[in-house]
Parts: sequence; structure tokens; C-alpha cells
Amino acid sequence: MCPGSFDPVTVGHADVIARASRIYDEVVVAILHNPAKTGTFTADQRRELILDALGAEVTNVRVELFANTLLVDVCRELDADVVVKGLRGGTDFAYELPMALMNRHLTGLETVFLPGDPRFEHISSSLVKEVARFGGDITGLVTDRVRDELLARIGGEAQR
Amino acid sequence: MCPGSFDPVTVGHADVIARASRIYDEVVVAILHNPAKTGTFTADQRRELILDALGAEVTNVRVELFANTLLVDVCRELDADVVVKGLRGGTDFAYELPMALMNRHLTGLETVFLPGDPRFEHISSSLVKEVARFGGDITGLVTDRVRDELLARIGGEAQR
Amino acid sequence: MCPGSFDPVTVGHADVIARASRIYDEVVVAILHNPAKTGTFTADQRRELILDALGAEVTNVRVELFANTLLVDVCRELDADVVVKGLRGGTDFAYELPMALMNRHLTGLETVFLPGDPRFEHISSSLVKEVARFGGDITGLVTDRVRDELLARIGGEAQR
Amino acid sequence: MCPGSFDPVTVGHADVIARASRIYDEVVVAILHNPAKTGTFTADQRRELILDALGAEVTNVRVELFANTLLVDVCRELDADVVVKGLRGGTDFAYELPMALMNRHLTGLETVFLPGDPRFEHISSSLVKEVARFGGDITGLVTDRVRDELLARIGGEAQR
Amino acid sequence: MCPGSFDPVTVGHADVIARASRIYDEVVVAILHNPAKTGTFTADQRRELILDALGAEVTNVRVELFANTLLVDVCRELDADVVVKGLRGGTDFAYELPMALMNRHLTGLETVFLPGDPRFEHISSSLVKEVARFGGDITGLVTDRVRDELLARIGGEAQR
Amino acid sequence: MCPGSFDPVTVGHADVIARASRIYDEVVVAILHNPAKTGTFTADQRRELILDALGAEVTNVRVELFANTLLVDVCRELDADVVVKGLRGGTDFAYELPMALMNRHLTGLETVFLPGDPRFEHISSSLVKEVARFGGDITGLVTDRVRDELLARIGGEAQR
Repeated sequence: MCPGSFDPVTVGHADVIARASRIYDEVVVAILHNPAKTGTFTADQRRELILDALGAEVTNVRVELFANTLLVDVCRELDADVVVKGLRGGTDFAYELPMALMNRHLTGLETVFLPGDPRFEHISSSLVKEVARFGGDITGLVTDRVRDELLARIGGEAQR
Repeated sequence: MCPGSFDPVTVGHADVIARASRIYDEVVVAILHNPAKTGTFTADQRRELILDALGAEVTNVRVELFANTLLVDVCRELDADVVVKGLRGGTDFAYELPMALMNRHLTGLETVFLPGDPRFEHISSSLVKEVARFGGDITGLVTDRVRDELLARIGGEAQR
Repeated sequence: MCPGSFDPVTVGHADVIARASRIYDEVVVAILHNPAKTGTFTADQRRELILDALGAEVTNVRVELFANTLLVDVCRELDADVVVKGLRGGTDFAYELPMALMNRHLTGLETVFLPGDPRFEHISSSLVKEVARFGGDITGLVTDRVRDELLARIGGEAQR
Repeated sequence: MCPGSFDPVTVGHADVIARASRIYDEVVVAILHNPAKTGTFTADQRRELILDALGAEVTNVRVELFANTLLVDVCRELDADVVVKGLRGGTDFAYELPMALMNRHLTGLETVFLPGDPRFEHISSSLVKEVARFGGDITGLVTDRVRDELLARIGGEAQR
Repeated sequence: MCPGSFDPVTVGHADVIARASRIYDEVVVAILHNPAKTGTFTADQRRELILDALGAEVTNVRVELFANTLLVDVCRELDADVVVKGLRGGTDFAYELPMALMNRHLTGLETVFLPGDPRFEHISSSLVKEVARFGGDITGLVTDRVRDELLARIGGEAQR
Repeated sequence: MCPGSFDPVTVGHADVIARASRIYDEVVVAILHNPAKTGTFTADQRRELILDALGAEVTNVRVELFANTLLVDVCRELDADVVVKGLRGGTDFAYELPMALMNRHLTGLETVFLPGDPRFEHISSSLVKEVARFGGDITGLVTDRVRDELLARIGGEAQR
């Protein structure tokens, strides 16, 4: 189980998911979203972009949407044993630890941390969007399809 | 002097206050609040919930409200020698340090850090409220009374 | 090249800029601002306050304004080789690192980190403004001119 | 695969191994030791103490000894997919990360980090031995058997 | 109770002890030493240098020597309520935390952390000795008396 | 000025030196060594391996040896303005900061930190030597020449 908001998926996310799919028999990517807030992409678009980023050879990964649900309840529903979280450094760890401990407290759900590839350490959805908004080239930080859709969306914003 | 917003008090807060009350002759819990912003609980309710969480056997602790006041001025007014802050990890320390140094700069006010009980490391007011909002069981993270009042409040929110 | 929002400049900022001006032949202080958002000071006022804080003896420093521009594009425009960032501790470093790596990824732009003077570790624009807003004395944290203009501005706010 | 020196096993180690045994089908605890250096316990004793600490109900865990071998070679030999490391805080993570990245570089071997139970955050083999050496009570930090054997060993040291 | 090895005392140590003496009624500085190992100064010399560094106006501080004793036993013997530790940054905190938690586990002994003065952040006994050994000027990092005795000692070493 | 022990130089070191040589007019790599201690390579060999690693196109870099000298004295002797240190993460920074502050205290010498390339985050001289000692392949972590000389040296050790 790989949870996140994935708005949108980056090459760093895709790397963690692909690696989790080699360690575990089956991986569920859970897009946790809040229908009341508008993200850059809708939850359905995010799912499509994740599936596109993973490609056809990753066959044991499903992508599901969850609105306003606790992660422990999502895992109970999916019968998921363990949450896998990519880490981009010590700060990420300090941020994720209380949530991992809370989840273990609530239902015994375990979280394991997979260190991200250092080549992707600087890549987050929010930084990618900021670079794109100011006209920087985001090729290689996300898939080409995410790049194109993001630029189209930002172009639209700019025109309004 | 134990400052905070305590919206609401958790078992982690109560543990730090109770331990401070064993180290120091007299402890003032200062609820720093901004009347212009609405919290989950009013300042008066927060005070009542703290007193209830501490119980009758803690006799050298007072709870006071302060609106829009600098901590150093609160301490001068109360003739408090030292601020006691619970720490839940290295991140808390990095966040609290500049404020502690600023307070020492302003009036010489000292801050001491008391490491929180690791059993409560995952417990913060905001995470407890998030768990409650999505239907998770918060028993044991706060007193039963805080839990009941929080659920009543959230139920009310949901109905509106 | 020393980028920042400088709203307003503190003695910590001025110290980093002055030290950078002794290490490098020429330093450009870049005020990155967003015209759509109102800061405490306008970009032009910030520039004036920086120049005033540096004083007449610092002669190899220019201050420029940039609205909604990527740092890498600012540097390309200015032909700046390297970004200099002051660090106030490990947390600052963790926050700045992804941006430094992103800038190197985008155009090869290098960032060097200059450890701030520990005497100024507690001083940030936002903490100074908070202290001023609640009536604390900020003399010595900013220049006297910044202090006076900040207090005038806050007094104006309070009257409205 | 849970590697370590386990000289001796603590309740923190046992907790991580037991939890790994619930997440993974099969777990190998690898005692990495250097025959040229004398530890407090021999590698064989360490194995026995681990098996004793895990108890009879943990049935999918094997304990193996490896002298002067790279972890990646141990994993290749055992056909182990993934290394599981317990983390006791941010410092542990910073220490373990370069080794995890090196192992991935060498053979693609993945490392996942399992956050330790905060109740055991203060427990390390070396701190337990230091407490025992100076006459402190280590009951509850290690199994009773480890405690007794450690005290016997330290008593022997003291007499020499 | 301020424990340490103080080999020798620095201006950073003296600052923490003096500040603790203003917060607490009575302070015991405990020099924890191992008679089997030779430090730069003997335990008795370290005591004398601490007393000299504190000066005559600090009257509620005693300095005691403890060889091979657990801190919790020292505190029980002295009837000390709380251990005070100066912190020079996040790394110090990460290092001290397990020991503080262990002490609380053993006898309920509490540890409070007092953030060191940032002006002394770079000053540790070992770094001071290293600077002195290579001929650097350590005036201002330690008292003049410590400086003179340290240089005499190092001169003696060099002649041997 | 890039100081270090470089025993031996890694691709991470070489990357930092090469990047410093593009930012600064002239770079001196200072090998700080202690003739009383035997490293893996002699100081002269380390110099040769650094020059070989940098290659012919890096022309503004000199490599010098310094035995038992303070960095500030080395810089005074060389008339170096600034020390450049590569950082491999937050832990490196916490370790380097007190030395940087001490150097500024001693002579006003400034230190700037250059974030290392994340692809080399796991590479340190000591980890490379450990991998080599246990038979791991270190190609790509150091130059081929360093690899061959290191393996020859370790082979010699093993035969003794």
C-alpha cells in the first residue's frame, strides 16, 4: 500500500512504486483526496497519470481513490498488511514518523520506509509545479504526459 | 510556566505538565490564544479540560489565559522564572529553539526542554483532531472527557 | 547572488550579504516578490531598507527586484555564477537543499551555503514582525530605520 | 533479512524481528561478526540468546552467522530480497542511509526501515552493557536470560 | 545537577552552570571520571578549574567527583531532583536523548535541556584542545587560567 | 581551499573539487595529515591520486600537503579567502558547523558549503575501503587507478 496525494505523480513516486512492486506480491497505490478541495488534477486524472507513468510491465499494482478516509481504514478495507513510504531525507522521516506511530497505535498497521533514489531527492509535486508555473523545463522530473498536461493546465490558469 | 494553545490538551501535554509540577514548586499553564481566530475549543473550555486532565492530586498548577501577549510579558507579569517546553523529537527542538533564543534575548527569560515520554511521541492536538474527524478511535490519546466533547463538536460540524 | 524576500531585512541578512561581499567580487541581492500578494513592505521599500542596512562602505553590492521569476532565470539574466544562501541551522539546510539541487538540475547553477553568525540564529523576518506586533522591543534585531518603519506600519494596522 | 551484531539482543531488537516476521513470509536474522575481535558474547551465544528471546511461537525466523562478509553477498547467498532495519530516530536513519544506498548501488539490494517502538527508543546493546557494568538494573531492557548471562560475564570481568 | 567530564571546563560549560544556578536553588556539578583512563587534567584539577571559572559570586554551586558511577546513583546519593544538560544543537540533543530516557526508565530521574548560548556553539573541550595543540589562540574559549594550564601541559607533551 | 584527508580520493571528492574550480579562480586542495599515524595511502600517494582523478583539463587546482597544522594557518600561509566543504547531508553539516564557526572565530576565515551530488551521497573513503576489504566491487566509486591501488594494498594486507 503506497498512499499519497500524487497531484501529480513524479518520477520519484513512480520509482518508489515500481520498487515496492518488486519487493511485495501486490501493491495498491491509494490516492487520498479531499473532494471539497480542488487540486491541480482531479483524483481520476491522477490515477490515469500514475498508471501511465508505471507503464505496462508493472502488472501487480492497482490504483484506488479514497476520499476523507483514515489510512488505517483504507488498509483494513483492502486487507493491506503494510504501508510503504518513500523517504527523501531526514526531514521526510521526521514528518512521517508520528503518522506511522499513530497508525500502529490505531490498528497495529505497520509502515516501512523505502529510501528514495538520491537522483530524485529534489523532486516533489509542489516544487515541480512551481518550476512549471514560472516557465522552467520540467522534462525528466515527471513523465512527458504529466508535463504536457501540467503545462496545458497552467497555460489555462494564466489566460484566465 | 508551560505555554501552549492546548486545543485541546492531550495525554502528552498532561504528562509534561504533571512532570513539571514535580520538578518545580509552582507551575502556571499559560493558554496563549488569539480571540480573533476560532479554535476547536474556546480558551475557557481549554482551561477546564486541562484542569480535568490533571486531576485533583496535582495541586501546584494554575491555568491562565493570555490573548495576544508576548510570552516574555506573560512571564514578567506572573513573575515566572523559566519556561518549560515538552519536546517530541529533534524537529520540535529545531522549531522551538529560535523562540527560546529570542525570549532570552528580549528579557533574559530561560527555556528548559523536557523530553516527552516516547509513548506519547505521535500525539499532537492536530493529529488527534484529524483522526477524530475521519472516525478513528482517539481513546487513550486524550482524556475521555476531551474525547467526548471533541466528538460532539465534530458531529455538530458534520451536521451543519 | 543572494536571493530572498527580505520583508524586511534583518541584521542576520545584512551580515550574510556583507560577508558574501568580502568573498565575491560582486554581489547581487535579488528580492523575489509576487506583485499579487501584499507583503509588509513593498519591493521598493525593501530595496531601500537593504541599501540603508548595508551602509555606504559596502560598494560591490547591487539590489534588484524580480517578480514571479525562477531563480535560475534571474541568474542567467544577471550572469551570476553562484547563489549564496545563509543558513541558520540544520532545519534551514534541509529546507534549502531540494531547491539548490533543483537549480543545479535546471541549469547547472550552483548554490553555496554560508553558515549564519550564531548570534543572529534566532532572527527571522517573521519572528521579528511577530515580536513587534505584540509590543516587544526589536532594537538590535533590525536597523533602527527598519524598526521605526515597521512600528509605524504596525501602528497603522492597529488603528484600522 | 535483519542484520546486526546483536551483542547481545535487546527487547528492541526482538520487537523489530517479531514484527518483520509478521510482515514477511520468512526472516533471516544475520549476525555479522568479526572473529578477530572479541565481543561480549561469542557469535554462537548471540544466536542462542536471539532464539530464546523470540520464543517458540515465532516459527518463520532463522538465525545465521556471517564472518567478514558484505551484506549484499550474504543476501545473494540466502536469496534474500530485502534488508529490514529498525530505526530508533533520525540519527539512526542518517547513519543507516549511506549503507542502504551503497547496497542498492552494489547489487540492487533494497533496504526498508521499520520505525522502532518508541517505548524501546533508549535501548541499545551498548547502553545496556554500560548500565549493567555500573550496577544498574537492566531487567526489562533485555530478556531475563540475557540479563543473567551479562551479569555473570561482567562479574567475571570485575574479578579478573 | 550538571554532569560532565569537564576536561577542561570551557566558557560554554561555565555559562550553562551559571544559568542553572539562577534557575535552581542549588546546583551540583558532577565530574564523572574513570580513574583507569588518563584525561588531560586530573579530576581534582578539573574541579579547581570549574570553581575558578565560576568565580566568587556564584555561591549555590558545589563541584563533586564521581568515579565509575551511574548518573542515577549519583543523583540518588545527592538527593538531586533533576539533571540539567546544556545543548549545543540538534546533534547534541539526539546524542543525549537516549541517556535521558534511560535515566528516567531506571529511577524516574528527569533531565531538562537548557539551550546553550549560540555564541558558544563552536566550543567543546575536545575542539579547544585540538586548537591549542596546533598552536591556535584559545583565549576567550576558556578562562585565562585554563588556557595557561592547558598550554603548559601541551608544551610538556611536546617536549617528551 | 578544499581541505580533507582524502585517503583515498573518491568520485564524490573529485566532483566537489571540480565544481569548486569552476566557481573560484584558483583552488588549493589541502591534504591534512598526521605523519605519526599510518593511513591507507601516504600523503604523497594521496596527492598523486587526486591529481590523476581530476585529470588534465582541471588547470586551476593545486594539491598541497600539511602535517599537524591548523586549517586557519594553512589558509593564512596560502592566502586563501574561503574554505569550500562538500556536504553529503544534514549529518555532515552538523559535524562541520562547529569547525567552521571555530575557524571564523580564530581568524575570520569563512567556510562555504557546497551540497554534494546526491548520486555520490553514499560514497565516503571509509565505506569504500570497507566494501573493498570484503571483496565488493568499488568500480565507479573511485577512479580505476584508486581501485587498483587499493585492491593491491588490501591484497598485501591479507597476505601478511
